Amino acid sequence: LDQIDDWITAAEAAADAAGATCRRHFRTSIGADQKTDESPVTIADREAEQALRRVLAERLPAFGLIGEEFPPVNPEARCVWVVDPIDGTRAFITGRTTFCVLIGLLVEGVPVLGVIDQPVTGERWIGVAGRGTRFRGRFGGTVGPKPTTRLDQAELSCSSPDMFGPAHAPRFAALKNAALRTSFGGDAYAYGLLALGQIDLVAEASLQPYDWAALVPVIEGAGGVITDWAGAPLRLGCDGTALAAATPALHAAALDVLRTDGP
Amino acid sequence: LDQIDDWITAAEAAADAAGATCRRHFRTSIGADQKTDESPVTIADREAEQALRRVLAERLPAFGLIGEEFPPVNPEARCVWVVDPIDGTRAFITGRTTFCVLIGLLVEGVPVLGVIDQPVTGERWIGVAGRGTRFRGRFGGTVGPKPTTRLDQAELSCSSPDMFGPAHAPRFAALKNAALRTSFGGDAYAYGLLALGQIDLVAEASLQPYDWAALVPVIEGAGGVITDWAGAPLRLGCDGTALAAATPALHAAALDVLRTDGP
Repeated sequence: LDQIDDWITAAEAAADAAGATCRRHFRTSIGADQKTDESPVTIADREAEQALRRVLAERLPAFGLIGEEFPPVNPEARCVWVVDPIDGTRAFITGRTTFCVLIGLLVEGVPVLGVIDQPVTGERWIGVAGRGTRFRGRFGGTVGPKPTTRLDQAELSCSSPDMFGPAHAPRFAALKNAALRTSFGGDAYAYGLLALGQIDLVAEASLQPYDWAALVPVIEGAGGVITDWAGAPLRLGCDGTALAAATPALHAAALDVLRTDGP
Repeated sequence: LDQIDDWITAAEAAADAAGATCRRHFRTSIGADQKTDESPVTIADREAEQALRRVLAERLPAFGLIGEEFPPVNPEARCVWVVDPIDGTRAFITGRTTFCVLIGLLVEGVPVLGVIDQPVTGERWIGVAGRGTRFRGRFGGTVGPKPTTRLDQAELSCSSPDMFGPAHAPRFAALKNAALRTSFGGDAYAYGLLALGQIDLVAEASLQPYDWAALVPVIEGAGGVITDWAGAPLRLGCDGTALAAATPALHAAALDVLRTDGP
């Protein structure tokens, strides 16, 4: 990882490029079509991913890339970008400033770099394995999860109650029941808010690698914990569940409620 | 209403004062206690309402005021402010920029003026009976709901699936089922997004007068329609349901699904 600073620079440049595209289309009346999985995808989404891919391919041509909108490039490479040009397309389409550009980097399958960027508000989180997460933005907030350890004192968040299938819905309901309060919406932005100590717990399912790859270094670099609902690290091939917590104790308590082979 | 411009100025000054308080506390670690109805209320909430009340009382001492945090003042007056210093306290507490300062004015019980203000992003909607709604903000967006008339093409929004009791949950579920897509979160901000053509439909329940008073002139002044779930205007004493729609045809279609005495 001795070139990590070059990779951070490349990831930030790619986020800048994708963000400029997002801002150009935000709150304009562009058409949204329907993908087969029912999630909306816009012209902005495709243009932003193209912009982002161009920057990364130019700067680090040997790296692979897995994105949401187009086929993977060299996904067997040692270093693979995993990107989502607009995480939270529903937020984007409805004019909410909680969608994010996500740029993650896997090295031998391990997430080592993550950028969460909100291009409209100008907020950006940068997480790097082994370093403290950095945040910049004009609305306040400093990196550092809350010291919450008890579920009944935890602010829980998830993007939508509709993201859970029959296998996960009752387990999420149990967690919601145990938590202090639950708020919906936010997508990757909610994980950024966890890193800022505003949210204590995020539990989600049906995530793709481009949804979680950038989040792992941001959460871990802030001192939080993020795994799947079985407590295993998020890696390619995982089941798409994610549990992020402000503290190890809170994570363990939430895991007890969520895991199939629970207490 | 020949003094309406003075009233608008007063409402804007009150929103400025409340907003300054909100910004000071946003994303800081202030304590949140629990009200009996389980909604969180913060120090910021009380300070913002005091700031707002001071401005309005000084400028228009004969007006009554109904607020969320403190007892009503002269609620039988001809002109009554109906205010919520932080609509969306849950959003505020979790660091989301979708909470709003709401300032509504009822004249003989009819909402004639509404200000929806997001003090962190600097976005403000001003609705006045008989005038076009004005919006200013740095993230783009122009006033004008979408021409959506069909439910199956409508973006539906509501603050939380948890806001519906047993009487309303199945009716909301039916509407959600008929709509194109549903997003959660947003509180009053979602009604502002409807006025900007980003959302087509908002259906909520369990609202208090301070939740809806400011919304009515903003939605109506943008060309939208807002009533309760029976199609009646929102007035003091209504049942706390609200249905806002981009067009009269869409409103009628949603009402057909929602109302108890439906088809």
